[in-house]
Amino acid sequence: MTLHWTPLAHDGAARAGVLHTAHGTVETPVFMPVGTAGTVKAMTADAVRATGARMVLGNTYHLMLRPGAERVARLGGLHRFMDWRGPILTDSGGFQVMSLAGLRTMDEEGVTFRSHVDGAKHRLTPERSVEIQRLLGADVTMCFDECTPFPATEEQVATSMRLSMRWAKRSRAAYEAREGHGLFGIVQGGVHPALRAESVAALTEIGFEGYAVGGLAVGEGQAAMFATLDCTTPLLPQEAPRYLMGVGTPADILGAVRRGIDMFDCVIPTRSGRTARAYTSRGMLNLRNARHAEDPSPLDPACGCPACTRHSRAYLHHLIKAEEMLGPMLLTWHNIQYYQDLMRGLRIAICEGRLDEHAAALEAGWAPLREENDG
Amino acid sequence: MTLHWTPLAHDGAARAGVLHTAHGTVETPVFMPVGTAGTVKAMTADAVRATGARMVLGNTYHLMLRPGAERVARLGGLHRFMDWRGPILTDSGGFQVMSLAGLRTMDEEGVTFRSHVDGAKHRLTPERSVEIQRLLGADVTMCFDECTPFPATEEQVATSMRLSMRWAKRSRAAYEAREGHGLFGIVQGGVHPALRAESVAALTEIGFEGYAVGGLAVGEGQAAMFATLDCTTPLLPQEAPRYLMGVGTPADILGAVRRGIDMFDCVIPTRSGRTARAYTSRGMLNLRNARHAEDPSPLDPACGCPACTRHSRAYLHHLIKAEEMLGPMLLTWHNIQYYQDLMRGLRIAICEGRLDEHAAALEAGWAPLREENDG
Repeated sequence: MTLHWTPLAHDGAARAGVLHTAHGTVETPVFMPVGTAGTVKAMTADAVRATGARMVLGNTYHLMLRPGAERVARLGGLHRFMDWRGPILTDSGGFQVMSLAGLRTMDEEGVTFRSHVDGAKHRLTPERSVEIQRLLGADVTMCFDECTPFPATEEQVATSMRLSMRWAKRSRAAYEAREGHGLFGIVQGGVHPALRAESVAALTEIGFEGYAVGGLAVGEGQAAMFATLDCTTPLLPQEAPRYLMGVGTPADILGAVRRGIDMFDCVIPTRSGRTARAYTSRGMLNLRNARHAEDPSPLDPACGCPACTRHSRAYLHHLIKAEEMLGPMLLTWHNIQYYQDLMRGLRIAICEGRLDEHAAALEAGWAPLREENDG
Repeated sequence: MTLHWTPLAHDGAARAGVLHTAHGTVETPVFMPVGTAGTVKAMTADAVRATGARMVLGNTYHLMLRPGAERVARLGGLHRFMDWRGPILTDSGGFQVMSLAGLRTMDEEGVTFRSHVDGAKHRLTPERSVEIQRLLGADVTMCFDECTPFPATEEQVATSMRLSMRWAKRSRAAYEAREGHGLFGIVQGGVHPALRAESVAALTEIGFEGYAVGGLAVGEGQAAMFATLDCTTPLLPQEAPRYLMGVGTPADILGAVRRGIDMFDCVIPTRSGRTARAYTSRGMLNLRNARHAEDPSPLDPACGCPACTRHSRAYLHHLIKAEEMLGPMLLTWHNIQYYQDLMRGLRIAICEGRLDEHAAALEAGWAPLREENDG
């Protein structure tokens, strides 16, 4: 049987369910830590597992450039390469081609670009992107799409979305079905309800194992993102998993879960961990700040990760100031743990039919604190 | 009872025994990973424990500058600060004052210097060094000594050694005895047997819970180091633990254990791990080298660490090339594991009276490979 999702419970538009994959089952809503280049930055695979994470994301763009998709395949695939035994979702490379690569030229067939690593010329098409993701061994393959720049006129967004829909059809044709694996289409259309509806219609006409909402969290703001979800998720098939790409803060995720999203990925918890910021049940802390220098209390008393159970805020502050690698290691671990605990709490609240109450408690906890760097 | 050492077995000049401390027992010969600034670089305390390490070293110089000894004391001491439940040995700061600090001026009383962190002026004397180590909560406190430059004339070495012996007396006087804690004297005298003998006589006259051999591994070469040990260790009290400071490679440690040394510390395994070098049962590898790029075999099939049991050499090479933090993390873990396994093997061989045979097997394993960076 192909990769599929079964519902467990609904609470308003929010859904709890189970994603069935070739590498095991995953409870949704789920947050997938980002393992860009074959590693969730600053964490061992054992540590990622210990947080409760069951599914991670790999980046086609990074892995095709280094070490190369064919090399990963010869070494037994990405699961073995990075020692990840759960499912892996790979993106299509489209987003990074736009954000990282040099000298891009785009045509109807695909994109030619230069590697940000060594300047070598590469080409990505829907067919090659799907092939790379097969070589990596992805459980979930994403359609190759164009990442529409933001801001853009409605006409630019429409043109870009329609190209992505033609590429989605080619991605579907290039994809070889395998047991427990699946291909996700990506809804585009910016913040324009009519374009989003047109995109959903095009994708559901083709048919996919899951549907992603792309082109959000690119600068439009949380209100516009939520408004776009409000007009998009009701159009998506009830029986398929829904993935909001590249989102987001804990508050973004909470709002999107309440609008019917099942899957998330984002670099925020890992990147923040490397820049001294910690997400907690009491809001966001910046451990670089001097007020933590002699604070013996734990980062988050509600958290069971090693940063919180073994050490004080003063120690974490010291590691950051001394530029010790253990600082980013512990803060990344904490942030991934926080995100996993957040998702587990949301799943339980949906199953128990008390998501509104749970959301209010989360928001009250976050409210007091959003600490910026004071030095 | 004060910190003390009990013998278990002898094999030639080599000794196996147990060091009894306020934070538990430690089997010797022991290698202490270096936790410079309150962290064994690139490792969690749990990971350090998992390698079998039972005792670590902290640096007085680094910790007095940042976060400050009084602050560590207010936070409950170094054990709690870095979450290390076993014993900790702290150095005296003398070595780093010479190698890292700026604008040093030395007099009979002590050394004034500027911090390499922020340029602030500091002063270390035997009394202040011992006080700092007490504030940190060290199980083993080291006497404050002068780190003699190398090369130096015999007269310079003699003058420096005699100053260190006067400082050793002051360190002893400043030290407050506590249950399970101890103060170690440091034998100086460069590569000159008569000066080493004079230094041992001066220290044993004062009396310490253990004796370190200092001023080696500073450029004199392995043969001169071993020759110095050959004329020094027979003079040391049989009943006290012996510590060779800042040593060394696996071959250095093997040679020193055979000459009666019980304790070691060195940055080699951690620093090498951060520069892509791995010590293994088959010699030293440089994982940066292109020949590892597609090698599916483990770093060291004889090792049980995560780098060796979970991943291929190809993956480790990839992490290094991609400058992923997990590369240094895994190689550091492996190197510390290798050093701990090395010490355990030596302890067992001494207890079983087959150290010569064991040493020959180790040396045969290391012989084929000492791989330098080829790009």
